[in-house]
Amino acid sequence: SLNNGRPTFTSLDGNFKFALRSVVQFDAAHYDVSPLRTDNDLGSGTNFRRARLGFDATVYKDWNIALWGEFGGTGGESAVLNQAFVEYAGWRPFGLTEPLRLRVGAWATPTGLEDATSNTEGLFLERAAAAELVRGLAGGDGRTGFGAFARGERWYGSAVLTGKVVGTPSTAEYNQQSGYILRAAFSPLHGPDYDLHLGASLQGILEPADTAAGPAEANAVRLAERPEVRVSGARLVDTGAMAANGLQVLGLEAGASWKNLYAAGEWFQVDVSRTQVGAVRSPFDPSFSGWYLQGAWTLTGERHPWSSANGGFNGVKPAKPFSLEKRTWGAWELAGRYSVLDLNDKAGSAGAAAPLGGVRGGEQKITTLGLNWYPNNVVRFLLDYQWVDVRRLSAAGARLDSDVGVVSLRSQFAF
Amino acid sequence: SLNNGRPTFTSLDGNFKFALRSVVQFDAAHYDVSPLRTDNDLGSGTNFRRARLGFDATVYKDWNIALWGEFGGTGGESAVLNQAFVEYAGWRPFGLTEPLRLRVGAWATPTGLEDATSNTEGLFLERAAAAELVRGLAGGDGRTGFGAFARGERWYGSAVLTGKVVGTPSTAEYNQQSGYILRAAFSPLHGPDYDLHLGASLQGILEPADTAAGPAEANAVRLAERPEVRVSGARLVDTGAMAANGLQVLGLEAGASWKNLYAAGEWFQVDVSRTQVGAVRSPFDPSFSGWYLQGAWTLTGERHPWSSANGGFNGVKPAKPFSLEKRTWGAWELAGRYSVLDLNDKAGSAGAAAPLGGVRGGEQKITTLGLNWYPNNVVRFLLDYQWVDVRRLSAAGARLDSDVGVVSLRSQFAF
Amino acid sequence: SLNNGRPTFTSLDGNFKFALRSVVQFDAAHYDVSPLRTDNDLGSGTNFRRARLGFDATVYKDWNIALWGEFGGTGGESAVLNQAFVEYAGWRPFGLTEPLRLRVGAWATPTGLEDATSNTEGLFLERAAAAELVRGLAGGDGRTGFGAFARGERWYGSAVLTGKVVGTPSTAEYNQQSGYILRAAFSPLHGPDYDLHLGASLQGILEPADTAAGPAEANAVRLAERPEVRVSGARLVDTGAMAANGLQVLGLEAGASWKNLYAAGEWFQVDVSRTQVGAVRSPFDPSFSGWYLQGAWTLTGERHPWSSANGGFNGVKPAKPFSLEKRTWGAWELAGRYSVLDLNDKAGSAGAAAPLGGVRGGEQKITTLGLNWYPNNVVRFLLDYQWVDVRRLSAAGARLDSDVGVVSLRSQFAF
Repeated sequence: SLNNGRPTFTSLDGNFKFALRSVVQFDAAHYDVSPLRTDNDLGSGTNFRRARLGFDATVYKDWNIALWGEFGGTGGESAVLNQAFVEYAGWRPFGLTEPLRLRVGAWATPTGLEDATSNTEGLFLERAAAAELVRGLAGGDGRTGFGAFARGERWYGSAVLTGKVVGTPSTAEYNQQSGYILRAAFSPLHGPDYDLHLGASLQGILEPADTAAGPAEANAVRLAERPEVRVSGARLVDTGAMAANGLQVLGLEAGASWKNLYAAGEWFQVDVSRTQVGAVRSPFDPSFSGWYLQGAWTLTGERHPWSSANGGFNGVKPAKPFSLEKRTWGAWELAGRYSVLDLNDKAGSAGAAAPLGGVRGGEQKITTLGLNWYPNNVVRFLLDYQWVDVRRLSAAGARLDSDVGVVSLRSQFAF
Repeated sequence: SLNNGRPTFTSLDGNFKFALRSVVQFDAAHYDVSPLRTDNDLGSGTNFRRARLGFDATVYKDWNIALWGEFGGTGGESAVLNQAFVEYAGWRPFGLTEPLRLRVGAWATPTGLEDATSNTEGLFLERAAAAELVRGLAGGDGRTGFGAFARGERWYGSAVLTGKVVGTPSTAEYNQQSGYILRAAFSPLHGPDYDLHLGASLQGILEPADTAAGPAEANAVRLAERPEVRVSGARLVDTGAMAANGLQVLGLEAGASWKNLYAAGEWFQVDVSRTQVGAVRSPFDPSFSGWYLQGAWTLTGERHPWSSANGGFNGVKPAKPFSLEKRTWGAWELAGRYSVLDLNDKAGSAGAAAPLGGVRGGEQKITTLGLNWYPNNVVRFLLDYQWVDVRRLSAAGARLDSDVGVVSLRSQFAF
Repeated sequence: SLNNGRPTFTSLDGNFKFALRSVVQFDAAHYDVSPLRTDNDLGSGTNFRRARLGFDATVYKDWNIALWGEFGGTGGESAVLNQAFVEYAGWRPFGLTEPLRLRVGAWATPTGLEDATSNTEGLFLERAAAAELVRGLAGGDGRTGFGAFARGERWYGSAVLTGKVVGTPSTAEYNQQSGYILRAAFSPLHGPDYDLHLGASLQGILEPADTAAGPAEANAVRLAERPEVRVSGARLVDTGAMAANGLQVLGLEAGASWKNLYAAGEWFQVDVSRTQVGAVRSPFDPSFSGWYLQGAWTLTGERHPWSSANGGFNGVKPAKPFSLEKRTWGAWELAGRYSVLDLNDKAGSAGAAAPLGGVRGGEQKITTLGLNWYPNNVVRFLLDYQWVDVRRLSAAGARLDSDVGVVSLRSQFAF
């Protein structure tokens, strides 16, 4: 069949199934940076944020397999494995109504509420900076792991032991990173035209990659994030490398959908187990946080329903596909978000160096307004405007502030 | 269906369509260079010029989408996005008989007559050097853009605003290149066994990529081209980087097909808006040109028909596929081309440095003879011999001439 | 059809056929190295050894074509062409019962008995070190070439002229490598529950790649191999680059399968035509060798049958797919191997430099025990434990010995 454009083949007994899949997101962005310096020159232009081709399949009834290649990227495209895994879904222990899924390979486990919505269905071009930063620590695209997933009609739970991200690392790694992702979500209230979501996650890095050959060990973590558009890969907030033997993240999630209105928010705290500052023992464990609030008003009346598949909200499916002939216009939506990411800890004041161990990663606040058009279930366009406000100090104490206006357009197909 | 080997799936109402596509071109070449120096050592061997896998699809009747990955290349293979786009083809303004197509993403817009013929159907392994050089300026594979395409039964017109080429640039770019391609073509005379083609194009770089971080700007263009075989990626003619704020190209096209005879030619002029020569203001805007004439005689009688799809000629479809059993031999064709590319401007004379602002890119003349075998609509083989004659001066005025003989074989499948 | 999960499309007349193919092998390994030094730090973690997506097709009855992309790798993943070729299989000269296949493009010609078994069906995560080293010289994945393949019911023969491996070389190559692979195999005794295999191969490098520009030539060969797990890409035995104008390899093969028992062994000798040692003429042509013996006991009774398709043994197909419902367990298998690779020649003794021209590549002996589970024809898991023993001298004569214990798990799907 070609349901919603997705070529799908099914054996007569239903035990074998194969679906070709593809996602393309082509972004164009213009950045207006003030004051412009060499450290904050975000280049305008275009970028394929995602250009994926692959398949999902079921074999011998109980086994799910997938392989997706990625030809897009951030701030420049390169071809790499996006996901590939083997999953056994033939066991229903503990009275579960849905099979417990046991998976090995590489994939993106949802690390929070925003991450539980497919990137093809999100409100904006990118997730909120805090959610995106956390996603990259022990999860994200191409993250290897062994995991278990369970769900009921109104709840979702997952536990994953994670490893490296696929691809050849830019620095040689002698032992790869190990981490974990634990998450639970449920919908305590729901009805035909409303859904409430509550959720929490605990995730972290158990041991950062060892980048020193031989008996010596060199383990570090680094927190950095781009403004919420990725045509330029430059990051305006960045803690730099911190020698550490791990980190932990707590995340709290809430969201609600009522008729054609939708609102959601998340809060994250990252605690780094820092070992050293330069040559001396770390005087304290630095801690960082971020949060966001977002909402949408679907002008054409469609709803964002909750789903237990990932424990989060789905995007909008247009009730009437766009057609010039039939004078139908697809779905239209207005969206807004306010997002904060604070990568400072004991940053001290301008004009002087930071206190010992202080981290001047900077604080980034972003306000986004978006207009989304969904001509049909395959194609959509997102037009965003962002006000980005970064306050940051250099090591010597000079102000490295940036005010950035970004206008961006995403053109997308997905099936 | 598997028409000509292409797996194609269509929904019952015809509104959804999906076709898997692939092109593989495997080239083997032996270069005989005289005199051999370190600057002109074209390495013999093999190369996958193209190795593409992807799909073309139609969804919701009016929308065309595509994603193709490329696993081949020039002088070495690397995996990269070849094309991906979303196209709306549901609007027929101005009394058009065919829909006006509006496209966004990355693809190769035809930049001339030779480029309007699919690379899988061209007479030789590569396009004429001048056509290939022009193609790479604001068009070519993986070029991003927004464009409009219109056509009637006997005419074609396109207007595209173009950006960068997909992939991570070798030098950091702070603002990406912007350019444009305008082209019109028509067939003033045509009949059951003949077609005449006339066409013209205007294209250029509006602003070269800015490779300097911060408020400073560094914009440059560079014209360089390989001999018309790409097993070696080395370029024998090359202007080097010229500081410039843009360039313009005028192209003129003519061609004709009569029964099993086909002839075509193009002429291009490139005008560079040069800003500086070293530290001083450019004394003049350098200008370069190139042209070619080519022809084919299809021994087995097949014709090269004109098509308004791209505004150019299609290749040969063998009337009787090769079969040892049936004693049928596919299609056989003889082809010849003479091509000139002149990248000198005010180059001065041997034994002395060039006048201020003179460009010693070199002049390349290539004569090619080819024998093509098309066993069927999927497979073909091209055997070419080339006489390459390059006359070029070094900065100091020494002769960097090269006489190169190249024998090459392309083995190809495409569906 | 979706036979064994493979989407296959066939035209009504059977002359056209198209099958989507994929192989994913996800490896996790823990290395325990003693004594640990900077030169032998094998990093633990995970790796996609193979992640392939592509197709095999038949067009116009007699032509076979294929293109496979590879998103996996060794010690880090990168996207590259795995294989692509055009094959004519419509000619049966010399009274052959099967067509003589003539192929051009890139693919992995079997270079020995172990290599004649698909990597998706081998007993262990990797081939024995000697077989793997030889495979990489003139064959291996993505090796370009022109070849002929013939077979009968109980014999197989191949002759291939080979070139470079696809991808952009790390060092510029001015002329690419040329090589050859000749191999013959037959099954002199066979019955419904037994097969005997004998075979021999002769292969080599006719001319190594020339890495010097201009009239000068720089040709070298290098023999190096990883322990028989590839999560880490590090090689513990390595001759370093040897200036040479070629090398030759002789391989001898024997194997047998009886009911659910299987045993096989191979021996290889590599003779290097060395030209120089530093600045002086090579005093002798170094010679290296390796061999292995391996066996398997399929606990659930399945057999390893011989096939003339590649001239070797196929893997196990589980008689009853694993199903919790039906209480069937797929196939289970125990396997063992002992493998030796000796890259020393005139290595001299510890505490002193080697004699002139002596090669201290090291000697590697590996004992492997494996437990394999095949839930069905698509999915399988391999659990291996290896004892790796490397004895090697540094240039100055210091002992660079390594004792490595490796536990590894492969999770695989293939269709």
